Amino acid sequence: MTAPTRKTAPVNIADKLAQFSDLWSQRTIAALNDYEVKVAKVHGEFVWHEHEDTDELFLVVSGRLTIQLRDGDVVLGPGEIYVVPKGVEHCPKADEETAILLLEPKGTLNTGSAGGPLTLAAVPLD
Amino acid sequence: MTAPTRKTAPVNIADKLAQFSDLWSQRTIAALNDYEVKVAKVHGEFVWHEHEDTDELFLVVSGRLTIQLRDGDVVLGPGEIYVVPKGVEHCPKADEETAILLLEPKGTLNTGSAGGPLTLAAVPLD
Repeated sequence: MTAPTRKTAPVNIADKLAQFSDLWSQRTIAALNDYEVKVAKVHGEFVWHEHEDTDELFLVVSGRLTIQLRDGDVVLGPGEIYVVPKGVEHCPKADEETAILLLEPKGTLNTGSAGGPLTLAAVPLD
Repeated sequence: MTAPTRKTAPVNIADKLAQFSDLWSQRTIAALNDYEVKVAKVHGEFVWHEHEDTDELFLVVSGRLTIQLRDGDVVLGPGEIYVVPKGVEHCPKADEETAILLLEPKGTLNTGSAGGPLTLAAVPLD
């Protein structure tokens, strides 16, 4: 194959998810202005945290994600979206391995203002 | 049903798409900061246009979308993403009815700087 003059291949979400298996580690798959599209595999419970400066969009690709909020749970299946508003505490959990797509400004940390040992910067995928 | 104190229902993309049938008309289904998540049904060819101030993200939900660029086509199937860079002319087309999800800043017009009779503001869905 010769290199195209412009990157004209689409990004296949399933192909990107097949490139890694570690949990709760966000991979960047596309950029939109100063936002990043990321994917992650999750299973079990994350940590309660909030993002002080930004909303956070979750889209479930496969599996089932519960976004625990202080006043109730949001349960998302494949093809479902939820936007956690800026400053709202949340704790994602999944009883089965679940693949999610996330959208938020570049540099947003997975644990928000909570920090702690699960904090990881997003890693680009080829 | 009683009204929840917080909107805790996820947004189901397929349910939103089932609420309308007109082509090339964007419906807003979620907001993320000053960005909008929109869905549309497309069939046939749109118009060549560009967005001078923003990238534009396309995600195909069902069907097949060709994003014509001046130096080649990008063909997207379900679960595939392409981001048209700011200022790059493009013309979407679909040989079959195709459902897409779009993401861009609020107020971005579908025809960008081209204008013309197909120009429509996005309409919110309930």
